[in-house]
Parts: sequence; structure tokens; C-alpha cells
Amino acid sequence: MSPLKNDRFIRALLRQPVDKTPIWIMRQAGRYLPEYRATRKKAGDFLTLCKTPELACEVTMQPLERFELDAAILFSDILTIPDAMGLGLEFKEGDGPTFSNPIKNRSDIDKLSIPDPSGELRYVTDAVSLIRKELDGRVPLIGFSGSPWTLATYMVEGGSSKDFSKAKGMLYDRPDDMQKLLDILSDSVATYLNAQIEAGAQAVMIFDTWGGALTPEDYRRFSLSSMTRIVEQLNRNYDGDTIPVTLFSKGANHSLADLANSGTNGVGLDWTVNIGDASRIVGNKVALQGNLDPSILYSSEDSIKQHARKVIDDYGQNTGHIFNLGHGIHPAIEPEKVKTLVDFVHQYSASLK
Amino acid sequence: MSPLKNDRFIRALLRQPVDKTPIWIMRQAGRYLPEYRATRKKAGDFLTLCKTPELACEVTMQPLERFELDAAILFSDILTIPDAMGLGLEFKEGDGPTFSNPIKNRSDIDKLSIPDPSGELRYVTDAVSLIRKELDGRVPLIGFSGSPWTLATYMVEGGSSKDFSKAKGMLYDRPDDMQKLLDILSDSVATYLNAQIEAGAQAVMIFDTWGGALTPEDYRRFSLSSMTRIVEQLNRNYDGDTIPVTLFSKGANHSLADLANSGTNGVGLDWTVNIGDASRIVGNKVALQGNLDPSILYSSEDSIKQHARKVIDDYGQNTGHIFNLGHGIHPAIEPEKVKTLVDFVHQYSASLK
Repeated sequence: MSPLKNDRFIRALLRQPVDKTPIWIMRQAGRYLPEYRATRKKAGDFLTLCKTPELACEVTMQPLERFELDAAILFSDILTIPDAMGLGLEFKEGDGPTFSNPIKNRSDIDKLSIPDPSGELRYVTDAVSLIRKELDGRVPLIGFSGSPWTLATYMVEGGSSKDFSKAKGMLYDRPDDMQKLLDILSDSVATYLNAQIEAGAQAVMIFDTWGGALTPEDYRRFSLSSMTRIVEQLNRNYDGDTIPVTLFSKGANHSLADLANSGTNGVGLDWTVNIGDASRIVGNKVALQGNLDPSILYSSEDSIKQHARKVIDDYGQNTGHIFNLGHGIHPAIEPEKVKTLVDFVHQYSASLK
Repeated sequence: MSPLKNDRFIRALLRQPVDKTPIWIMRQAGRYLPEYRATRKKAGDFLTLCKTPELACEVTMQPLERFELDAAILFSDILTIPDAMGLGLEFKEGDGPTFSNPIKNRSDIDKLSIPDPSGELRYVTDAVSLIRKELDGRVPLIGFSGSPWTLATYMVEGGSSKDFSKAKGMLYDRPDDMQKLLDILSDSVATYLNAQIEAGAQAVMIFDTWGGALTPEDYRRFSLSSMTRIVEQLNRNYDGDTIPVTLFSKGANHSLADLANSGTNGVGLDWTVNIGDASRIVGNKVALQGNLDPSILYSSEDSIKQHARKVIDDYGQNTGHIFNLGHGIHPAIEPEKVKTLVDFVHQYSASLK
């Protein structure tokens, strides 16, 4: 494997000095790019795109051709693990993900086993290897997974949900069943991420999209503790490299101090916290990733620069910051706006060093 | 007007001693009640139900017949003001609210004027008077409005929105236009709530459903400051009674200290903060309303009691707490579950006095 030419992202996650603030964008390979829409059309449907390593590699590389991004992220879906567990994942147009065999009771949970990364999930590690080769050391490759709680919500609801009535019904009425489900998911995610690391992922991230739907106590008991269990199992030294991990729980700013104590290297922030305040809470234990409101990209270039500068100024330190949006980029954003943001973050942060 | 037989709700909002913790439920008059669904069917559509004082009164009273609630809340919609401003409100079945004449630019904003509560909005004050008469002093009647920022999002988006691209585009690119819109909405809400007070509302509440979509700084600058402007204009002594006001910004727990300094009597809490932590932040400046996760009502009676007890124990003081859910009750909840909750809150809190 080629050595990294740009290791700014890894260094910032490890709180080492950097020449400028690294930046990548959640969902940077996505619908706002016309070339992505073309590849997706070629694939036919979303799952085929995810499951065909050559196509997943193609869309992973697309944003890097346009923008000076400091990391690539594997193109995949957060629901690959429950799909490999046999829940029957489908994406119906405009309808979000659905599972034809959702988890209803303890007996469904007891039947689950940890998916073999070299079996059903082979397409993921194949994509990782292919992307890593294609990147040729240009920037690091991030592997990822959904968090156990977030996966559990989809598995119990049978798809997306507005209020999580079934998943929370299980959590409140049968916390032991929910814990059992979260435990097998935690071990599955750890196995899965370790396989991505072996295949070439140079950093990993866990997306906890629905952690913020829980009360602070339940978030810590059910979601954060599952992620901590994963962090403890990760192979964070591989082939001489340190593999940093980032946890991102949207809407869980109430628990930043606990996130910082979980053993993670980085904590992702949504835009509902001032990054300076977050930094004072986490101290120098972790790096912070974020946290521009994705809707800023609907506004003018001047507004984008002004708000990006504020995030950098509010953070106020020379390292430990990875610039990103506070959530995935919206499909209606003009690609030029991303270029404005990426170039500004590099130029402005370099001017401060 | 009859004197209040049960003033527990008012006393708790004013942080005066109470014999037990008062409780009411956001959306207590709503779709989870079969008698509500029957009245709505009789009305034909949702807006007719809101605009017919006799029917609005009928559904307002329904939950009080079933449960020992400590307050009634006017049955209405948060979008009455933009409707009265001529934006053309419609509720399409299963589709949420839409405006046929949304706000696009400064010229649309400049054309807006404060609706006359004795004109287009007369149906609201008529409903308030009728409900107050029907209540006959049983429990206090809460009047309410949407917050300026929340109303502005619907007016600029033309309806509901997932990402507020247009409203945030205006806020980021043309903050002066957004401020102008918020100013006229603030003065309209103040006029509207004062008219509800004159018609008989014994407390008022402002629902800021979308305050939490903003960054903390923008929340304080655009949403909280508008609500503060309203609070300053409210007629809080009427006919010898103190009229307490409650502000509820969903997802804005980052700004509880600022909310407590806004001049409000009560602050509503969603379930993503521990009420004991919130109480330590706001001190004895305000009462707190909340904050059981509405999804708890999907679980068993034992689970409901256990979680309700935790909220009361976490709050830990003898007054200044109004029990409620952290958001509106979901339509699929069984009414019996509400009875369990209401009776438990009264019985358990009385046992602590």
C-alpha cells in the first residue's frame, strides 16, 4: 500500500500539529453531484450501487476529483449489517429503507448471529481494498458503520420511523431484550469495522443517527455503552499505523463529556452546539469534527465563508479539529458551494498557523 | 367568571406551594381519543374544527371528562396568525399544512400587517370565551400561539419542511428581512395572546417547535429574542389575576439559562435533558414543565409509573414543576395509558409533600 501523501485528517484526529484544518463532508459522495446521479442510474438501484465494489469505488472517488478534500469515505449504507443478518433490506424509491423480516421478539433476537465479513459482507471489504488501491495514498480512507442503537431502531421498526414506537416500546418494556440485541450488534459492528481496517480503512467512524431520540440516561445506557463496547474491540494498530475512531451521535450534545471518556479519538458534532463550548467540555481528550449547519450551503458564498470562519474561530485551537458539516450534505446543494467551503477552510485555517 | 376551583397549575407556574404536582398533556385534545375523532369527522376537516367555536370547545373539554387534568388548553392550531395574514392555509389529508401564498421576498414581508383579533381571528377569542364559560372554574384555561420563528419557517417554506432550506436561506443571506418578518410576527403574537387573555385565557404558552433547528447563537438571536419581545408586551395582570407565560422551544436545551432570563414564568422541556440538570441551570427563576418521553406511553403501566416517578424524583423540589410529556402525545396511544400517568403523578407527588 502507498504511504499517505496527505495525512492531515489522521493527524488532526490524533491531535497532532497540522498545516491547515482538514475537511471532508458527510455524504460527500452523494445525490448533489450529477456524476453520482449518473452512476446510480447506471447501477439501477441504490443497493446494487452499494454492493458492486467497482461502482462503490467510482462514486467514492467522485468528490475527490472536484474538491481538495482531506479524506475519502467508503460509499456504503449504514444498514449492511442487518441486511447480512437476513432481515431483507429494500430501498423503495422515495420511501427510505424497509426490512421485510423485522425483529419482533426475543426469539427473533436469539436467532441472530454475527455476520461473517468474508461472507455476506464481502462486497464491503472488496470495495475498501479497491478504493484504497485507487486512492494510491492521496488521502486516508474512512470506513464506517451504523451504531448498534441506530441499527436496532431500523431492525425493530422495520424501516424508518418518526417516533420509534416499537424500538422504544422494547427498550422500556423489555430492556433485557433490547440489551441483548444491542450486544450482538455491537460485536457485529466491531467485527465488521475490524474487517474494514484489515482491508485498508485508515480510520473508522460510527454513525449514531438516532442516539438523540433517547433521554440522556437511556442514550448513555443503551447507545453510548454499545459504542464503547465496540471501541474496546477495535484493532486500532494495524500494520504499523494508528487507526483513529470517531463517534457521531446526532442530537446528543448533552453527553459530550461521556463521549470524550469513551476511548474514542474523535467526536462528531451536529450544529446545535457551539464548537468552542464543546471543546471546553471535552478538553484535550478527543478531536472534534464538525459542525457547520448543512443549510448554510443554501446561502451565498459570503455567508458560507463568514459562517465557516466562525466555526474555526470558535474552535480556537491549532489542532484537534476536522472541519465538516453537522450532518450529511443535502441533495439540493450546488457543488460549487462545496468548493467555496473547502477552499476557504484550507486558506483561512492556514493563515492562522 | 367563576373563581378557580383547582389552581394547582397556576400556583406551580408561579412557584407557589401545591398539594400535588399538576399535570396536563400537550395535544391532550387530539387524535388518540375516539371522541375527538368523532367530532373531527362531524366537522369535516381540521380547519373547520378549529374555526367553529362550539366544536373547538367540545374537543377542548373531552380529555377533562376522562382524566383528572389540572389545565385545559384551547383547541386551535399554531398557524392561525399566518392564515389571518392572508397566506391561504390548507390542511391536505396526511400531508400537513400548506400555504398557497408563501413569503418569498421583502416585498411580501412589507405587505404583512398585524391581524385584528376581533376580525379574522374572532373565532379564536370566541372559542376562548366559550370554553372558559364551560369550564366554570374547574381548571385554568391555557391560551397559546406558535413562536415567531416557528411561524416564519412555515410561511417561508410554504408548509412543513425537513431542512428549512428557504427559511434558513433567508436567515443566512438576508438576516434583515428575516428580522423584519420576525418583528411583525412578534407583535402579532403579542396582540393575539393579549386578546386571548382578555377573552378568558388564564395562562399563555408559546410553542417554538422548530427553535432547535437553529444553531445556539441563531436560536438566541432570532427565536428567543422574538419570544422575549412578546413576553415584554403581554398583559400579565388581568382583572386581578396574574397570567403566567410558558415558553417551549423543542431541542433548545443549550439555551436554558437564557430562557430562564427571558422574563417567562415557565420553561417547557423536551425529554432530551434530565429535568434535575435543567433545574440546576435555571435555578429558582422559572418553573419547569415536562418532560416524559411521549414514547413511554407505548410501554406497560409499570414502565409508565417507573419513568414518571423518575421525572418527579429527578426534579426533586416541592414546587415549580408542571408534569407533562416532552412533546405532544402520539395519535396511537391508548387513552387508558394517559389515565395511568395522570393518576400516578397526582398520587405519587402527594405522597412526597
